[in-house]
Amino acid sequence: MAAYVQDVFMLFGDSITQGGWEPGVNGFGQRLSHVYARKLDVLNRGFSGYNTEWGIPVFEQVIARSTDSAPKIRVLAIWFGANDACIRPSPQHVPLDKFKANLTRMVEMVREPSSPHYSPATRIILVSPPPVNTIARRADLEARNPPLKLDREFDITRSYADAVGEVAVAQKVAFVDVWTAIWEAAGKSEPALAKYLGDGLHLNEEGYDIMYEELIKTIAKEYPDVHYDNMKYVFPPWAEIDWEHPEKSLYVKKE
Amino acid sequence: MAAYVQDVFMLFGDSITQGGWEPGVNGFGQRLSHVYARKLDVLNRGFSGYNTEWGIPVFEQVIARSTDSAPKIRVLAIWFGANDACIRPSPQHVPLDKFKANLTRMVEMVREPSSPHYSPATRIILVSPPPVNTIARRADLEARNPPLKLDREFDITRSYADAVGEVAVAQKVAFVDVWTAIWEAAGKSEPALAKYLGDGLHLNEEGYDIMYEELIKTIAKEYPDVHYDNMKYVFPPWAEIDWEHPEKSLYVKKE
Repeated sequence: MAAYVQDVFMLFGDSITQGGWEPGVNGFGQRLSHVYARKLDVLNRGFSGYNTEWGIPVFEQVIARSTDSAPKIRVLAIWFGANDACIRPSPQHVPLDKFKANLTRMVEMVREPSSPHYSPATRIILVSPPPVNTIARRADLEARNPPLKLDREFDITRSYADAVGEVAVAQKVAFVDVWTAIWEAAGKSEPALAKYLGDGLHLNEEGYDIMYEELIKTIAKEYPDVHYDNMKYVFPPWAEIDWEHPEKSLYVKKE
Repeated sequence: MAAYVQDVFMLFGDSITQGGWEPGVNGFGQRLSHVYARKLDVLNRGFSGYNTEWGIPVFEQVIARSTDSAPKIRVLAIWFGANDACIRPSPQHVPLDKFKANLTRMVEMVREPSSPHYSPATRIILVSPPPVNTIARRADLEARNPPLKLDREFDITRSYADAVGEVAVAQKVAFVDVWTAIWEAAGKSEPALAKYLGDGLHLNEEGYDIMYEELIKTIAKEYPDVHYDNMKYVFPPWAEIDWEHPEKSLYVKKE
């Protein structure tokens, strides 16, 4: 069995999180796995198609109870909205108020002393969904067999992105505004979003690059103690091993 | 804290394992993370510069005791030899017999019923080190300040690679022969290894591609139950959620 030797950086969200290790796109999950190697285990808790409503029961299960002997979540990124913002009659649609309440509940599950999952040291980051390119998304859906109708609208996804920021402010947690960062990179032009979102919905390499840079900037500013540059390897670099008596440096005590 | 919801695919080894998520090379760690998403957590237990001698005390700590409540290691890849094969006076050098004994000990720590880490269901894969391109390695070391002498020899690394295969046969565990796969891909020409090993020692994208394909072929043949195509998501695909009563399908019981 895998022993608890490293704390965790948990990425919780939808397909844009799940796809963060996809080959060829240098996704944010992969890049975090690389820079946090030997420091934190970056866990993929992304669930394609999920909204916050389905996310809550899953969240209850992927975060341990405070009484369990389990790896600490040092950093928790919560990234929803792309599916919650679907328009009716999509079963993925979650009303805006409910979306905000669900995100708030997730934060409270970690931050409220009365919660069974209370973990005051966990650094929480809320992430807004990227803008939707409805031109590309419509083309993608219409090309399917049978063709599907457009399921997301530009302004509606924007309002869900804004809502993530409002919850972050109200809950005093860090906020990575992917919506605005990508919108500005695209010169506030919907067709220009094609550079960042291959199918109008999911980030490509350019899109993940913007997201990753914003995320690392936010960690550096808001939670510098968990920036990878400020964390030490759990097990020592090989040049620091006592080569005559390696066991002296290689048995590591957890705090 | 991070709950135990997924079993583990553990990658245990040296820098060639640690670098498996490096941006731009589509490393084997990243690709495994992608294909096993929502099935197994792929854990990076790669330690740059380490040999098996230093690996053993670390291994004792990264694999849990059988009595612990910890994620099961469904698949364990052990990949050493690149540093053990260093020549004297390198502190990384481990004599060939000791190298074989260390690898054997690692396997036994998981497979012997009397071991505190006994885990009979864990699928073990031994991986041989890639061939060394001593032309590139020598140039790399001579370019340093101060210049360093060549620390590995082609035939010696080959003998360590052979030894991994001998331990795998003796222990009846799967063997991924990266040494032979890359040597054959290079047409058995040392200068041609440059295509697969950027600095003569570490795999680049082409090298990791060969390693990954060999690994997946081996899993398909030797341990098909843990091939990603034969494993289900822990949490259901979104289209299978009972949208009227989502909690019915979203609370998942572990076996």
